[in-house]
Amino acid sequence: MAVKLHGLAMSSCTALVLSCIHEKGVDFELVPVNLSAGQHKQPPFLAKNPFGLIPVLEDGDLTLFESRAISTYIAEKFKETGHDLMRHNNRNEAALVKVWAEVESQNYHPAISPIVYQFLVAPLLGQNPNQEIINTNLEKLSKVLDVYEAKLSTTKYLAGDFYSLADLHHFPSTYYFMKSPWASLVNDRPHVKAWWEDISSRPASVKVAEGMVLGQK
Amino acid sequence: MAVKLHGLAMSSCTALVLSCIHEKGVDFELVPVNLSAGQHKQPPFLAKNPFGLIPVLEDGDLTLFESRAISTYIAEKFKETGHDLMRHNNRNEAALVKVWAEVESQNYHPAISPIVYQFLVAPLLGQNPNQEIINTNLEKLSKVLDVYEAKLSTTKYLAGDFYSLADLHHFPSTYYFMKSPWASLVNDRPHVKAWWEDISSRPASVKVAEGMVLGQK
Repeated sequence: MAVKLHGLAMSSCTALVLSCIHEKGVDFELVPVNLSAGQHKQPPFLAKNPFGLIPVLEDGDLTLFESRAISTYIAEKFKETGHDLMRHNNRNEAALVKVWAEVESQNYHPAISPIVYQFLVAPLLGQNPNQEIINTNLEKLSKVLDVYEAKLSTTKYLAGDFYSLADLHHFPSTYYFMKSPWASLVNDRPHVKAWWEDISSRPASVKVAEGMVLGQK
Repeated sequence: MAVKLHGLAMSSCTALVLSCIHEKGVDFELVPVNLSAGQHKQPPFLAKNPFGLIPVLEDGDLTLFESRAISTYIAEKFKETGHDLMRHNNRNEAALVKVWAEVESQNYHPAISPIVYQFLVAPLLGQNPNQEIINTNLEKLSKVLDVYEAKLSTTKYLAGDFYSLADLHHFPSTYYFMKSPWASLVNDRPHVKAWWEDISSRPASVKVAEGMVLGQK
């Protein structure tokens, strides 16, 4: 039975789960949520996610939210199919995948996501981008990318010489960031640039990127 | 062989890992890091965690950082001893543990942690608490706690009727928050209050709290 993913292909958080679904070749149905009509704040959706946010995954009787929890669930349930995103046969490597997935969650995402929001989303909502927020977060992101550059000069991917969920979680936000005037933060760091070109050219990433057109319904 | 935890008992992030270690009854050695001397920004420590943050776990040849990744590693490696924090025999329950652990990481922590910092840490650093930051985050925290109150009226703990890593991750920051003038945000919500009294009275939590005295070396 196909899993049901409630969300929007253009949303970074939905795209994160879709990247995992495509890496695993999982049958799925994308159920669109009408954000402009406030569907995510209505009781039927709130019964699935009380925080009123996309995406939500339904797999039979199980309902999950929080994109990183959903991707981890899919990577573990379908560990034997598609690319092994969790290194489930090697406890130490699996632990390093979790370390770098947490780095994305606690360090990378809090810096890159406000930049993407201010540059790409705010104008769609009729707001002026807040340059102060952008500048503060560009500085934070630079420091994180300095660490990545050093790490990626010793291993091909973040957790080791294998593509994992830790890399995958970086794809959607970085895809949008690379459309901004500050893409040089990635391109000026040779190992980060090579890593980005690698992870963004994976068939699953290319497929997901096709739906990442902001402003679409 | 005992694991080595580099950190400080008073640090919320170290306390998060210590709570897991005590729940599991794991042999450990706490190796203090002299933050005031900047030990965490020196090359020997940066070789363990390039972000220069505590805690760091060493388990034989394996070096891990990011507190939530460390606690997950310990909960999984020692899944057969102590309390089962991951529901490792039930995939659906395990997935719900991850959902609510992500809620802590993405919703609860970003709201409660600036409040604790401004109220308890800033004064120790000779800074005045920023009341605007506190107020903004009290509002965010209230909304998160409204969702928790509704959830905890249907299940005893966040992920279900079982204490899990999702609850545990809330302990250290909430412990400090309850010393603030805004503890009523918890105490005025009967189910959240009962949950907090339950999780904070677990022997592992009581043990960890003994070391949570801010300003100690």
